[in-house]
Amino acid sequence: MSLHAFDAAIALTAQGDGLWQGHTSPAYANMIGPFGGVTAAQALNAVMQHPRRLGDPVAFTVNFAAALSDGPFLAQARPVRTNRSTQHWSVEIRQGDHAVVTATAVTAVRRETWSAGELPVPQVPRPNDLPAPDGTGRVEWINRYDMRFIDGAFPPAWDGAGASDSRTRLWLRDNPARPLDFTSLTALADVFFPRIWRRRATPVPIGTVSMTVYFHAGAAQLQASGTGYLLGQAQAQAFRNGYFDQAAQLWNEAGELLATSHQVVYYKE
Amino acid sequence: MSLHAFDAAIALTAQGDGLWQGHTSPAYANMIGPFGGVTAAQALNAVMQHPRRLGDPVAFTVNFAAALSDGPFLAQARPVRTNRSTQHWSVEIRQGDHAVVTATAVTAVRRETWSAGELPVPQVPRPNDLPAPDGTGRVEWINRYDMRFIDGAFPPAWDGAGASDSRTRLWLRDNPARPLDFTSLTALADVFFPRIWRRRATPVPIGTVSMTVYFHAGAAQLQASGTGYLLGQAQAQAFRNGYFDQAAQLWNEAGELLATSHQVVYYKE
Repeated sequence: MSLHAFDAAIALTAQGDGLWQGHTSPAYANMIGPFGGVTAAQALNAVMQHPRRLGDPVAFTVNFAAALSDGPFLAQARPVRTNRSTQHWSVEIRQGDHAVVTATAVTAVRRETWSAGELPVPQVPRPNDLPAPDGTGRVEWINRYDMRFIDGAFPPAWDGAGASDSRTRLWLRDNPARPLDFTSLTALADVFFPRIWRRRATPVPIGTVSMTVYFHAGAAQLQASGTGYLLGQAQAQAFRNGYFDQAAQLWNEAGELLATSHQVVYYKE
Repeated sequence: MSLHAFDAAIALTAQGDGLWQGHTSPAYANMIGPFGGVTAAQALNAVMQHPRRLGDPVAFTVNFAAALSDGPFLAQARPVRTNRSTQHWSVEIRQGDHAVVTATAVTAVRRETWSAGELPVPQVPRPNDLPAPDGTGRVEWINRYDMRFIDGAFPPAWDGAGASDSRTRLWLRDNPARPLDFTSLTALADVFFPRIWRRRATPVPIGTVSMTVYFHAGAAQLQASGTGYLLGQAQAQAFRNGYFDQAAQLWNEAGELLATSHQVVYYKE
C-alpha cells in the first residue's frame, strides 16, 4: 500500500530538539506556493510528532507570514509551558533566514464531562446524492479533495454578479479517502474557496493571513469518523478595507461538530 | 485629569529591545489572578508600543498558559517578519522563569477597498433604555465595565435550571467611559461571562485557554466610536469533554461591526 499524498506532504524528518525538516508538496500546489491548509497541517504535525507532546490539540492558530517557496523548510516546535493536563506550544516555520509561518497550539488531556452541542447540524442532501468532482481543479490541490457542493458553489463565471451572501455548504473529504486525524482536519478547515469570490464573482487576489481551529473532538472521535465525509459550512461576517473573515464549522456524517474554525484573509481591492 | 484605570492597568515600562515590564492591576482582579481581557490587552500593548510596529492590528491570538500571579511580569514582543504592508508578531509574557501567556499578532497598513458587512446588526433596545449596573460585581473587574444586558443574562440562581441556548446580547463599555482603541476593544471581547454558566446555571470552574480577535476596523474608525457603547453578542457552538467555544461579535452604536472574536474555554466537569 503506497503512502497517501497527504501523509507524504506532511512528513517531517526529525533534526533533534523539536526541529523538523519538511518539504512543500507538488500534489498540494496552489497558484503561488502550496495550499495553506497543508502548510497549517505541517506546522501542527511538528507538534503531533514531538516526543514531549501531552494530549490532543484543542486550539491551533497559524499565521501565514509569507508565501512558501517550493522546496524544503524547517519547522521548530517548542513546548512553552507544560501543565498537569494542558500544554502550550509555539511553532515557527522558516525557509532560509526568514520566518514564513508562526503558530501556537494548545494540547490537552481530555476526559469525559457534561457535553452538549448548540449549533444544529444543517439538514442537507447526502454526499452520494450530489455530483462528484470532475478532477479538473483550477489548481492542483483542489484535486486532492472530494468536494460535493450543496449550496454556495464556486462562481460559475467572473461576471461580477456576486451572491447576496457568502455562505457555502459542502461535503468534503480527502481524495482518495483517508482516515481523519488532527492534521487532515486542520487542512480540511481551509478548503473553502475565498468568501469574497462568492460575494463579488471577481477574481480578487487574496491570501489567508491567520487561521484558528478549535477541535471539539478527541483522537478517538476523529478515528471513529473514519474515511467518511465531513459537512463543511463557511461564511464571512465582514469585508472591510482589505481584510475579510470566515467562520467555518465541520461536522462528521454522524452529525457531530468536530471542529470550528476562523480565518482572516487579505484581499487586494 | 487622572489616568483611567484601564490605561494604568495596561501601562508598560520599556526595558529595551521589545521587552516591557508590566504589573497586574487590582482594579481588574478576577477570582484567581487578573481578568484575562486585560492580560490580553497588556500583551497587545507590547506590540502597540513597539517602535517598529507597522500598521494596525488585524488579527490577535492570545493563549493563557497559566493564571498570572498578582505582581510584575515581563512581556517580550518580537516582530518575526515585516513585509511591505503587513507584519507578524510573537509575544510572550513571563513571570519568574515561567511563560504565562503566548500570543501572535498580525498588523497591517489598511487602505480603502470594496467593503461590505454580512452579519446584520441585531435590532435591540438602546443602552439608555436598559438598567445600569449596580456596581456590585462578583469580582472587582466587573465594576470596570458598564454592562447592560439585553438578553441571555447571568443566571439568576445556581439552581441547575440552565437556558436552552447560551446566547447573550448586551451593551458594554468601559466604566468610566474611555475612548475606544485596539487594547480596550480586545479586553471588551473577553467580558462575556462563561457560556456554560448560562447553559447549566451551575458555577462550574472555567478558564479561557485561547482567544482570537479579528479587527474589522482601523484606528480612525475606532476613534470615531469614541466613548459610545458597543453591542456585544456571544454564543457557544459546542461543549465537549472539558472545553467549549465562544463566538462573539462587537458592533459600535452606529451599527458597524468592529471586531469578531472566538475563544475556547476549559471547564472542570
